[in-house]
Amino acid sequence: MQTLVVFEFPSEGPFGKEAVEAYKELAEDIAQENGLIWKVWTEDPTNKLAGGVYLFADRDAADAYIEKHGARLAGFGISGIDVKIYAVNEGLSTIDHATLTR
Amino acid sequence: MQTLVVFEFPSEGPFGKEAVEAYKELAEDIAQENGLIWKVWTEDPTNKLAGGVYLFADRDAADAYIEKHGARLAGFGISGIDVKIYAVNEGLSTIDHATLTR
Repeated sequence: MQTLVVFEFPSEGPFGKEAVEAYKELAEDIAQENGLIWKVWTEDPTNKLAGGVYLFADRDAADAYIEKHGARLAGFGISGIDVKIYAVNEGLSTIDHATLTR
Repeated sequence: MQTLVVFEFPSEGPFGKEAVEAYKELAEDIAQENGLIWKVWTEDPTNKLAGGVYLFADRDAADAYIEKHGARLAGFGISGIDVKIYAVNEGLSTIDHATLTR
């Protein structure tokens, strides 16, 4: 079953265009992640938060990524990582224009 | 700037296919919402949570929807609604296969 994951963690930036420069290679690596359908990169400079919303093909791929990305963020010195995991209701999401494929 | 919104609230269901039957008309109404690009419907039956991840064309559309949907959920007797609001990093999201248009 498709699985949606929401990461949120404290961040001093960079945000916006500077983040594209800083994280372009990381994004290209994530694009190849096993079972990843898509990721939306999220940011809140005012409240100094960053994160991402991910759609995975199944729960196993989501769990593997959560472990990998959590360790990567910890390696960046980031703590206070919040992770939420949900099943996706495909029927309702399709009515509301969501793209659930690559 | 495109704005991503995450709703989460307690729910006793229905979930899955039963939710499609129960909320199909609501989803069709949401599909017409001003400024909505897409919504992914989320659910966690084990922890009795439901919600949605929304992409809006701008912050004003997101704010208007949050007020409207919050009142609608309250009308369903739902409390404990958690709402998160983020800017979207379009450059990084596009690298990671995200669809940011209808």
